[in-house]
Amino acid sequence: MPMLQVNLLKGYSPEIKHRLMRALTGAVRGITQAKPDAITVWIHEVGSDQYSRGGEPRQPGVGAPDSAAMVGDFLAAMEARDLEKAETYLAADFVMSFPGSGELRSLAQLVDWARGRYRYVKKTIIATDVAYGMDTTVVTTHGTLAGEWPDGRAFNGIRFIDRFELRAGLLVRQDVWNDLANANE
Amino acid sequence: MPMLQVNLLKGYSPEIKHRLMRALTGAVRGITQAKPDAITVWIHEVGSDQYSRGGEPRQPGVGAPDSAAMVGDFLAAMEARDLEKAETYLAADFVMSFPGSGELRSLAQLVDWARGRYRYVKKTIIATDVAYGMDTTVVTTHGTLAGEWPDGRAFNGIRFIDRFELRAGLLVRQDVWNDLANANE
Amino acid sequence: MPMLQVNLLKGYSPEIKHRLMRALTGAVRGITQAKPDAITVWIHEVGSDQYSRGGEPRQPGVGAPDSAAMVGDFLAAMEARDLEKAETYLAADFVMSFPGSGELRSLAQLVDWARGRYRYVKKTIIATDVAYGMDTTVVTTHGTLAGEWPDGRAFNGIRFIDRFELRAGLLVRQDVWNDLANANE
Amino acid sequence: MPMLQVNLLKGYSPEIKHRLMRALTGAVRGITQAKPDAITVWIHEVGSDQYSRGGEPRQPGVGAPDSAAMVGDFLAAMEARDLEKAETYLAADFVMSFPGSGELRSLAQLVDWARGRYRYVKKTIIATDVAYGMDTTVVTTHGTLAGEWPDGRAFNGIRFIDRFELRAGLLVRQDVWNDLANANE
Amino acid sequence: MPMLQVNLLKGYSPEIKHRLMRALTGAVRGITQAKPDAITVWIHEVGSDQYSRGGEPRQPGVGAPDSAAMVGDFLAAMEARDLEKAETYLAADFVMSFPGSGELRSLAQLVDWARGRYRYVKKTIIATDVAYGMDTTVVTTHGTLAGEWPDGRAFNGIRFIDRFELRAGLLVRQDVWNDLANANE
Amino acid sequence: MPMLQVNLLKGYSPEIKHRLMRALTGAVRGITQAKPDAITVWIHEVGSDQYSRGGEPRQPGVGAPDSAAMVGDFLAAMEARDLEKAETYLAADFVMSFPGSGELRSLAQLVDWARGRYRYVKKTIIATDVAYGMDTTVVTTHGTLAGEWPDGRAFNGIRFIDRFELRAGLLVRQDVWNDLANANE
Repeated sequence: MPMLQVNLLKGYSPEIKHRLMRALTGAVRGITQAKPDAITVWIHEVGSDQYSRGGEPRQPGVGAPDSAAMVGDFLAAMEARDLEKAETYLAADFVMSFPGSGELRSLAQLVDWARGRYRYVKKTIIATDVAYGMDTTVVTTHGTLAGEWPDGRAFNGIRFIDRFELRAGLLVRQDVWNDLANANE
Repeated sequence: MPMLQVNLLKGYSPEIKHRLMRALTGAVRGITQAKPDAITVWIHEVGSDQYSRGGEPRQPGVGAPDSAAMVGDFLAAMEARDLEKAETYLAADFVMSFPGSGELRSLAQLVDWARGRYRYVKKTIIATDVAYGMDTTVVTTHGTLAGEWPDGRAFNGIRFIDRFELRAGLLVRQDVWNDLANANE
Repeated sequence: MPMLQVNLLKGYSPEIKHRLMRALTGAVRGITQAKPDAITVWIHEVGSDQYSRGGEPRQPGVGAPDSAAMVGDFLAAMEARDLEKAETYLAADFVMSFPGSGELRSLAQLVDWARGRYRYVKKTIIATDVAYGMDTTVVTTHGTLAGEWPDGRAFNGIRFIDRFELRAGLLVRQDVWNDLANANE
Repeated sequence: MPMLQVNLLKGYSPEIKHRLMRALTGAVRGITQAKPDAITVWIHEVGSDQYSRGGEPRQPGVGAPDSAAMVGDFLAAMEARDLEKAETYLAADFVMSFPGSGELRSLAQLVDWARGRYRYVKKTIIATDVAYGMDTTVVTTHGTLAGEWPDGRAFNGIRFIDRFELRAGLLVRQDVWNDLANANE
Repeated sequence: MPMLQVNLLKGYSPEIKHRLMRALTGAVRGITQAKPDAITVWIHEVGSDQYSRGGEPRQPGVGAPDSAAMVGDFLAAMEARDLEKAETYLAADFVMSFPGSGELRSLAQLVDWARGRYRYVKKTIIATDVAYGMDTTVVTTHGTLAGEWPDGRAFNGIRFIDRFELRAGLLVRQDVWNDLANANE
Repeated sequence: MPMLQVNLLKGYSPEIKHRLMRALTGAVRGITQAKPDAITVWIHEVGSDQYSRGGEPRQPGVGAPDSAAMVGDFLAAMEARDLEKAETYLAADFVMSFPGSGELRSLAQLVDWARGRYRYVKKTIIATDVAYGMDTTVVTTHGTLAGEWPDGRAFNGIRFIDRFELRAGLLVRQDVWNDLANANE
């Protein structure tokens, strides 16, 4: 039954507004257990001459890129070994951690480390979930891996989960878990 | 700069309203990149005689339990091997998956399966994140494991992540990843 | 899809608020053709210290009695020949018009006029409809009449419609049509 | 003193918004007895990218045609014996009832039935009232009839009332009462 | 923490909206002592087809000229002895009062009266303050005077304050105080 | 025609809300020139569990004392030479300026300075106006003085204006102008 009136400065894209309405609806639903159909969101947009804080006009921000899509694009770039593109998603202090890798601080380091572990790996994604924290947005994506071991044998159906932390629209942390060690036992 | 006016039926607890305001603020922040201080949420509560949908009055729901707290309580009950209490958090069709376990469908099955793997295990949690989807709430919690192998040797600092799906206030799925296999290599 | 936020001074009864929400929902539905389920009404009530017009606080009115119920009560009083009670619903300048009666200005006049037409009459009501105009509320009620002719023969199933005009919570006009003349042909 | 904020999807015509504001004002006035001047209605319109129900965008409806105008047009078409045009206002299951006619199901049937009753008839309308129900809109129009009896004698000033039920913008029922039988006695 | 949603008819200039937002913020701040940064104002503008009072559409006013700016312009015109321009700011019943002048009713009268008092005078303004009353807007402006006495001696740093009453966008009263008499003692 | 919805935390006194509604109405009236009767203010109060900024609950302030009343009380205490009471209204850095006095920094200094000027003085107030700035509230009060010169002669009808600056509910500055020097010429 909840109704949300969102007062927003004009200037956000329809895509961002759509994402916002879905995220707000999800939060209301998850917390109140109201039926989706009973949750309405209305965005009232005003121009910068129709809003003030402390008596001063303000400008709308640009909005953050879609966190889930960004993680998907980053993973696709990594799968394609397009490190240059992948770098564009990373904050300066980006840190990665894979099973047994310890903390890695560059994609080059990761590629080195992975070399002895598999020839290539492809992800089939089951779900990507976005958790909005106060300072950080956390994206987790899980599914299964398929690929080839260093000796050329194929593997598939191996479970994985990647957890990403995003700040200010960039990836600051990636933590990866998977069952490759179990599969290789 | 965004302002949210939430129209809500009276009857939700202060705790639920607080959780709702934080979740909405997080979503707005994560998507618009507005500064937290500039995001205000106002809940206007009305009695059931002040609201109608389709001309009919409606009753407020009870709200869902705190998903993150619930997952914490479930994990604590499991660590304490209080299976009876742990069961109270589970939906009838609850499914679990651990590294190498395949799908398990009861806590008893899990205890059996775990028996040969470690004497006991304790979790140190780094973060718990809640992602509100349209039908499912996903809670992920990650950190490190400490415990004893079957042969009595101690282990600690082993990375883990648990992903839970909740529906209607109950756990329907738990997927667990950790580096126990790597640690034991 | 429409959402109505009604700002109202505290003090109206739940019954009046319910009637108001239904009337607003009906008007929105009849004009926009939105589905009832998609039409929500929220009444935000404020105390008289939370409202001003022209800088001055105002007091809530008492609200009008339910127009449809009032017409029902008036007709029941008339059927029971309780003229004293019936009078309480009438404005000073009340006017009535029945088939062939011309304009009557008192209930006593009506009783006189009706004497030669039937021994008694009872109404079975099919529907009562309320039309809210800017100055006048119009209530129409239609259905069938049963009763006895002056010679004692029974009649029933004779169509009728009564149209009432209300101002300031009192009946100012009643216009009655029925098929008694046709039935008696 | 009441203030209505109506949140509406963009796309309704100014005429529909005007009708809506008047109907809402009338309902508020009729039920709270607030003075018209103290009743304000504000329509906040949002684009389809600014609204969601259940997280999904929705499209505005087209709005219903003006019920009172539609009834006026239908009656004018009937008076002009333009049955083709009159048919366009009728739902498939349209039913009519006139004094002594029983239920008629087509305009052709009506014309047949009326043939012996008068040569022609013209309506002078006193008032048309619209009652918005939850599923049905009821329009009543009353006034006086003028015309010629089958034998050529003129008549006029004969009271009538027509009650129409509308659903989904079409007439589903017309019930007519008048004093023709009394006049002809 | 206060949030103001202002519903306004479209048609006011950005300058008027800015002035309005600042005045509202100031009033909220002065009365609640909330921090400016915590006071937000949102103006929701609607077209004249989206608003009704008493069921009738209304037109927006043009807004009043900036009272502080108007007083500044009037004083500049007076300093430049451009009486023609200065007259345009005055209501028909404008009244002035200077130290020792009694009530003057025309600019010509003022010029006469001032002749023996100083050769010319220039104002350095410290602050201009606007007080919005229910019927009258009061503008006070204070600072120091510099100029020449009739005998040619210069003076400066002499305190003054002018108090103006405005109605319907015109000056209806000017009351002036200064320390010229003290300076000349 | 403007409508203001003010969202406020519960806890402000009715007196503060009344003052706020009048000040807001005045500002709207002075700037838009809308008729007072057409300006409505609705205060929606929410408890501290119904509001968050940055996801955190906030507490309402206590509100500022009525600036105009405070100035009136201060002036009454000064007239009654109740310096102790008068001190309670002053900020630590309070500064006064009277005609010919230069800047005075304590009430004692003022009493000293005034001793040679008049035996006593009483104020008849014509109007008190409050201007809400972003950081400072300015109160001006003007009228006429009556009293006795040091030599015992009475005086009255002498124009005065006092301008006060208030910050955080205390007087930080008083500037006084009057025609005593002219009267004594």
